[in-house]
Amino acid sequence: MKFNGRNISVSPDALIGENVRIGDNAVIYAGVRIGDDSIICNDVTLGEPLNAYYSDDAYVNPPTILGPGALIRSHSIIYAGCTIGAGFSSGHHCVIRENAVFGDHCSIGTMTDIEGEVQIGDYCRLHSNVHIAQTCSIGNYVWFYPFSVMTNDPYPPSIDIRGGHVGDYTQVAVHAIILPGVEVGENCLIGANAVVSKTVPSFSLAMGDPASVVMDLRNYIVMGKGRPYPWMRRFDRGMPWEGIGFENWLNQQPAKAERA
Amino acid sequence: MKFNGRNISVSPDALIGENVRIGDNAVIYAGVRIGDDSIICNDVTLGEPLNAYYSDDAYVNPPTILGPGALIRSHSIIYAGCTIGAGFSSGHHCVIRENAVFGDHCSIGTMTDIEGEVQIGDYCRLHSNVHIAQTCSIGNYVWFYPFSVMTNDPYPPSIDIRGGHVGDYTQVAVHAIILPGVEVGENCLIGANAVVSKTVPSFSLAMGDPASVVMDLRNYIVMGKGRPYPWMRRFDRGMPWEGIGFENWLNQQPAKAERA
Amino acid sequence: MKFNGRNISVSPDALIGENVRIGDNAVIYAGVRIGDDSIICNDVTLGEPLNAYYSDDAYVNPPTILGPGALIRSHSIIYAGCTIGAGFSSGHHCVIRENAVFGDHCSIGTMTDIEGEVQIGDYCRLHSNVHIAQTCSIGNYVWFYPFSVMTNDPYPPSIDIRGGHVGDYTQVAVHAIILPGVEVGENCLIGANAVVSKTVPSFSLAMGDPASVVMDLRNYIVMGKGRPYPWMRRFDRGMPWEGIGFENWLNQQPAKAERA
Repeated sequence: MKFNGRNISVSPDALIGENVRIGDNAVIYAGVRIGDDSIICNDVTLGEPLNAYYSDDAYVNPPTILGPGALIRSHSIIYAGCTIGAGFSSGHHCVIRENAVFGDHCSIGTMTDIEGEVQIGDYCRLHSNVHIAQTCSIGNYVWFYPFSVMTNDPYPPSIDIRGGHVGDYTQVAVHAIILPGVEVGENCLIGANAVVSKTVPSFSLAMGDPASVVMDLRNYIVMGKGRPYPWMRRFDRGMPWEGIGFENWLNQQPAKAERA
Repeated sequence: MKFNGRNISVSPDALIGENVRIGDNAVIYAGVRIGDDSIICNDVTLGEPLNAYYSDDAYVNPPTILGPGALIRSHSIIYAGCTIGAGFSSGHHCVIRENAVFGDHCSIGTMTDIEGEVQIGDYCRLHSNVHIAQTCSIGNYVWFYPFSVMTNDPYPPSIDIRGGHVGDYTQVAVHAIILPGVEVGENCLIGANAVVSKTVPSFSLAMGDPASVVMDLRNYIVMGKGRPYPWMRRFDRGMPWEGIGFENWLNQQPAKAERA
Repeated sequence: MKFNGRNISVSPDALIGENVRIGDNAVIYAGVRIGDDSIICNDVTLGEPLNAYYSDDAYVNPPTILGPGALIRSHSIIYAGCTIGAGFSSGHHCVIRENAVFGDHCSIGTMTDIEGEVQIGDYCRLHSNVHIAQTCSIGNYVWFYPFSVMTNDPYPPSIDIRGGHVGDYTQVAVHAIILPGVEVGENCLIGANAVVSKTVPSFSLAMGDPASVVMDLRNYIVMGKGRPYPWMRRFDRGMPWEGIGFENWLNQQPAKAERA
């Protein structure tokens, strides 16, 4: 019932792959390229034009690349200039601004808001209502939980913005704030409501406002559960090591094995 | 002007009650049952299919029950499998995921995001931008304010999720966080920005990060105003004791009178 | 490709200025007046009716005024009774409830939620996901960052709501909370995640939960950068002093010069 071809608008300058379904009321602008086997649900907008579209008669929409196997849920908007890898999925009412880059196999939850010029790696999971400010970057296998935010302006308002970075495998809990330009290492856990104002070394549990490192996560023991972190040895759903084990998978990844 | 029958899609397998109005661009999927005297505004989706819809040719949409007298404001999405009682109202751009259960006379505000498998009682008020994670439960006459959140994953990421519970009459202020599996009692007030990490006894004022119980609310006196809590003796708008007084109403509710 | 006249609904009782473009699927209700040179994008709703619309056959939609040069991005909803000045722009999925007033040259970001009866001055910038509760007021040249919120109910739930006020030039950082009825002065910086529970004098840096004044901002010195506040001497993009300097502009504004 979603794919009736009702009230759809697809630019003749969009490239639609094989076996792509497009929901009713969707709008696909010029320059969009949708990978094979993708599902674009109702009321989705792909390739939303930049501001110059409204004022410049010579405006040309930059290319928007959506990899194969995407599932874009209804009412989401992806701007022109974005490059999104394979297997991407979004919740509803999401917005991804221009020139954002996602690697492969990422997902974002309902109402998540990715500002422009953001760089996100592979296999990241951003839940509902996450906000990532312009020029921030995120590694691979990183999770953000609801209302967590990366910011970019140390002396607001300014034009001197500096997005921070969150390293591979790190978990950023609900309502946590990464302040402008801050580097968070790999394999960290940023606690709920933490306000991270300075560098967090890899393998840290950081909590509080302002956040401080309270523990090396590798020493964290939960009664009856052992050591929950690093989490990759106990969780694999949707990850590339699913079913084969993190160690086995890692041993097949020579470049990554060096730093793990 | 809302109800022109323009660009509406209603499944022949939906059951629409008497005196139901359906706004333009609305989509009502198979298995939806809308109670009498309901108003479904523009661009609303009812019975949004689960993921199997996209891949399983034998997929059957589970039943979605919306009680009588509902008012679903525009651009909201209610998934298949939800059961929602009488007199429900939603703001705009809300999302309610699969198998959520609401009692009677609840309302949720704009952009509120209810994840799946959530249980919510009667007469609850969730304002704008509330997020309730999977498997959490909420009693009756409970209020959540903007950006408050219930979470469910104690060691993220994991598959061992544990939603908490918030008891009857409790107020959860803006930006408050109920951590995974935490039990909040009845008649509590959780302060703005509190991070609730352990059980909160009934009648507590809990504040801070991590939250601590700072007072028995029954002892809370405001100069010139008396004792504001429990709040039911001074506030009745939209509540079942409206116009008759909480005590009188309570005396008519034998099961509830025992514990009040 | 936005302005195809596809599936648009415009009331005969709306007044559309010169050179106004209206996107597909937009709905313009009775009593709306759109200023010249405005752009109303796809799926936008202007003049959303109040609740009486659904139940009162004699309902008349109150006037909704949108000044010239507006840019309303897709999926945003502006209620009837709002009065919005010149040069307004909104992000996507915004909601502005009834009788809100904006001065000239304001902008609000994606998913920002302005409740009813709010008063906002000129040249304000509310980023994504800001929530302003009923009856709050905001001066001129004020910025709010994502997930910041103004509240209005000191003893929730109550009918005795009291919106606070934020003065001219003040910056309210991410996740900051202004509690009910609180007055924040001019030229303040409210830190990330601050919970502001009492009056903040002008020129204060206020931080923490509960927030305290930690410094007179005029004394704040950043190594290698000098004094970043007041910010108007170093930032002018989109401000009325753009290109001419704040001092020069101020000297042309006799009424404002007195208090600056």
